Amino acid sequence: MRIVIIGSGAAGATAAQFARKTNRTAEIVLVSREPYGEYSRCGLPYVLSGVIDRFDSLIEYSPEWFRRFGVELRLSTEVTSIHPSRRTVTTASLLTSEEELMDYDSLVLATGARASIPPIPGASRPDGGLEDRVYTLRTMDDARAIAGALDRASSCMVIGAGLIGMELSEALCSRSGDSTLLSCMVDVQSHVLPAMIDADIADLVERVIAAQGIRFLPGTSVFKIESGDRCHVYCRSSYTGEEFSYSVDMVIVSTGTSPDTALGQSAGCAVGHSGGIVIDNRCRTSVEGVYAAGDCTEYDDFITRQPVPIGLGSIAVRHGRVAGINAAGGDECLAHGLLNSRTTRLFGLEVAATGPTCVELQKSGIEPIVGKVTGSTLPEYFPGGKSITAKLLAHPKDGRILGAQVVGEEGAHQRANLLAAAILNLTTAEQFLQLETCYAPPVAPTLDCVTLAAEAVRTKWKRTTRSEAQSDA
Amino acid sequence: MRIVIIGSGAAGATAAQFARKTNRTAEIVLVSREPYGEYSRCGLPYVLSGVIDRFDSLIEYSPEWFRRFGVELRLSTEVTSIHPSRRTVTTASLLTSEEELMDYDSLVLATGARASIPPIPGASRPDGGLEDRVYTLRTMDDARAIAGALDRASSCMVIGAGLIGMELSEALCSRSGDSTLLSCMVDVQSHVLPAMIDADIADLVERVIAAQGIRFLPGTSVFKIESGDRCHVYCRSSYTGEEFSYSVDMVIVSTGTSPDTALGQSAGCAVGHSGGIVIDNRCRTSVEGVYAAGDCTEYDDFITRQPVPIGLGSIAVRHGRVAGINAAGGDECLAHGLLNSRTTRLFGLEVAATGPTCVELQKSGIEPIVGKVTGSTLPEYFPGGKSITAKLLAHPKDGRILGAQVVGEEGAHQRANLLAAAILNLTTAEQFLQLETCYAPPVAPTLDCVTLAAEAVRTKWKRTTRSEAQSDA
Repeated sequence: MRIVIIGSGAAGATAAQFARKTNRTAEIVLVSREPYGEYSRCGLPYVLSGVIDRFDSLIEYSPEWFRRFGVELRLSTEVTSIHPSRRTVTTASLLTSEEELMDYDSLVLATGARASIPPIPGASRPDGGLEDRVYTLRTMDDARAIAGALDRASSCMVIGAGLIGMELSEALCSRSGDSTLLSCMVDVQSHVLPAMIDADIADLVERVIAAQGIRFLPGTSVFKIESGDRCHVYCRSSYTGEEFSYSVDMVIVSTGTSPDTALGQSAGCAVGHSGGIVIDNRCRTSVEGVYAAGDCTEYDDFITRQPVPIGLGSIAVRHGRVAGINAAGGDECLAHGLLNSRTTRLFGLEVAATGPTCVELQKSGIEPIVGKVTGSTLPEYFPGGKSITAKLLAHPKDGRILGAQVVGEEGAHQRANLLAAAILNLTTAEQFLQLETCYAPPVAPTLDCVTLAAEAVRTKWKRTTRSEAQSDA
Repeated sequence: MRIVIIGSGAAGATAAQFARKTNRTAEIVLVSREPYGEYSRCGLPYVLSGVIDRFDSLIEYSPEWFRRFGVELRLSTEVTSIHPSRRTVTTASLLTSEEELMDYDSLVLATGARASIPPIPGASRPDGGLEDRVYTLRTMDDARAIAGALDRASSCMVIGAGLIGMELSEALCSRSGDSTLLSCMVDVQSHVLPAMIDADIADLVERVIAAQGIRFLPGTSVFKIESGDRCHVYCRSSYTGEEFSYSVDMVIVSTGTSPDTALGQSAGCAVGHSGGIVIDNRCRTSVEGVYAAGDCTEYDDFITRQPVPIGLGSIAVRHGRVAGINAAGGDECLAHGLLNSRTTRLFGLEVAATGPTCVELQKSGIEPIVGKVTGSTLPEYFPGGKSITAKLLAHPKDGRILGAQVVGEEGAHQRANLLAAAILNLTTAEQFLQLETCYAPPVAPTLDCVTLAAEAVRTKWKRTTRSEAQSDA
């Protein structure tokens, strides 16, 4: 049996490992356009910041590691076409252009995503590359290019205040020791991390970045970039209509990604509404023998049941695992939808979320009950406790927990994990209150802020159902 | 309506609060033998250590707080008898001996537990008090007595290496700046924290306490104490049969607690196999109109379905809440059993557990599948990660998670909370692998040690079921 995996990112590399664990004798070939083994994309901002000493440190699975694990790794190699009826792929070396026809029993597409550059005049060149002084961060080569440019730059602008844009902004501040290198960060949306948290929680993050001296312009779109000796970035405020420009040495565009589905589509794999390859709960595409995992795919949101593109490493490894096991003849299932549990740490603040935001729920026609509590990580009387805020979103009908956002100096992501388990288990706020959490004065309070937030939800929910019962009567 | 609550510990004080929230007009009377408002018993070791500046800091709800909350607090008052048929109680002031007859609609017993002193000759006096130089830690007055004695002592021995014994030992070291004040700690069991963790996990804790210079003698019973100018403690090793003695200035006995049920029993409340007042899932005792909560009660273990005494503040507040709501006319349920989620921090090591230990499961006839993994709190390439070990116990039949123990410098209790949710939701190791946990390089790895431990369980479970299927064929 031969399993061919296309892409050596988190999904592809994990698929290879679990295919090997599932089937000790199968031949496993991992094909990658890039010249590296598996490396952490999410770690790239931290090399730019200097927290991680060099790019090579991000390589989690080296070519040598794959060799020892019995996986044939073909680097700098492109799959140029897939022939599902004959179960073959054609590969071409990016170094020698040499072509090869390879047959497969199972094929795993883990082609990932590309940085999505908005159609701003002056951002991209006609050939698809970026204009001078314009950068984006997706691959290690992207990051090396940014690092080289930063060495010569004294001013930089970041377009997009999502996860990567925010982490890049922090990296620029760490690199220069202050906020002078980062001229400003703009986003078309009204607050930072719009896909992750609601405005009220983002406000806590914005206070911290403001305290760092970072200039963040919400509701601001870029309508033109002119590159020359410097880079002129023309902006428009959606609030005031005002137009203005920044003159900087370089611009980094961090406005999200789009699934890389070209190869999958050429093989006949169906692509869904959100633009990703459609998979079932065993990572099977619409083409027999072809699996897909990671950022090139889409999958239903657990709550809204709408397909959303995969965009998180944590999901890529989980889906890669399932794709690898099934491609190798095992039988493993994905969860019944995506929670998009997500976290980051910015200027000492840990931000985490799971499930849809309030805004996303409202778009799906659900007006959630909100319970928000700011507490401490330790009992009030114990020194060293840190402030922590939890926001819970619950269904107005049954009080079921649908989403959560947590912010604090520490422990936010662990609380989001606990709430992710609650969401996945269809737990109501009332049931959540029954859960025994650990307590000891130097470790945690008897009732954590997430429990208190559930109590707030329950109180509101009881009040609503009571008043509805009264108005029915 | 009048609700009388006996005992102002965590269960009683919480019952009072939730009774008030449930019923705005009821008269609520909280009767306490002690002269303080509600204070944190679990915080007492940290006043002895000096981490918390003074005993008064532990008072979480002062008499003034109860007054503002509309709860009548009667301190230094004992309930001498309960007359359930007439729904009255007789109280007596411990200061003036004045008696009073008070009627109630609902009564909540929150009489707590007493330190359980083993029948060691020379430990207790015939009147039930402790001999000179012998101490125990349960109440604030106990702690004040210990503090006074420690001021004069240069050597102290701790009997019992459970949670309180361990926290006391750490407190003695903090107080003296080294391990000289603590002569030794003994336990009849083979390792520290025997009710909380198994020997292999305890080994990680014992290494840390050994590094502090603490002498811990496992498998050691005390068979006699002689108090005079000093205190002679006679010990016997169950391993070697050897007898030996220590001469110290004082001894602290920390060998657990037993539910204080005398009053409940006198009212006719049934007491169960583990010695606590029997309650149903609404905190109702066997006597109509009488509820009970906290350390004076017992409740079924979620996994073994055997009744176990309540002995944790985190459970006391949850049960107190339910007792208070129901006593005030609401309708609220307890969880379908106890997990005993528990944690502590000892010499910089956070230890946490939920559900039964391996030994407890074996006693119930379950030989669990064990998955144990030591990982890091951060991805390998990111600086600052701390080592963390997770041990998962799963049912051999279906791979359902039954218990967990986690040890590390940080984040252990949060992982135990997540596994508590898994246990409560009857989650199998396979299902646990589907749970999306948060990932970001400065926050958490893509696959946390608890996820990897679940993978280890799943692998073993698959192997077992496969070999069983083969032997069936």
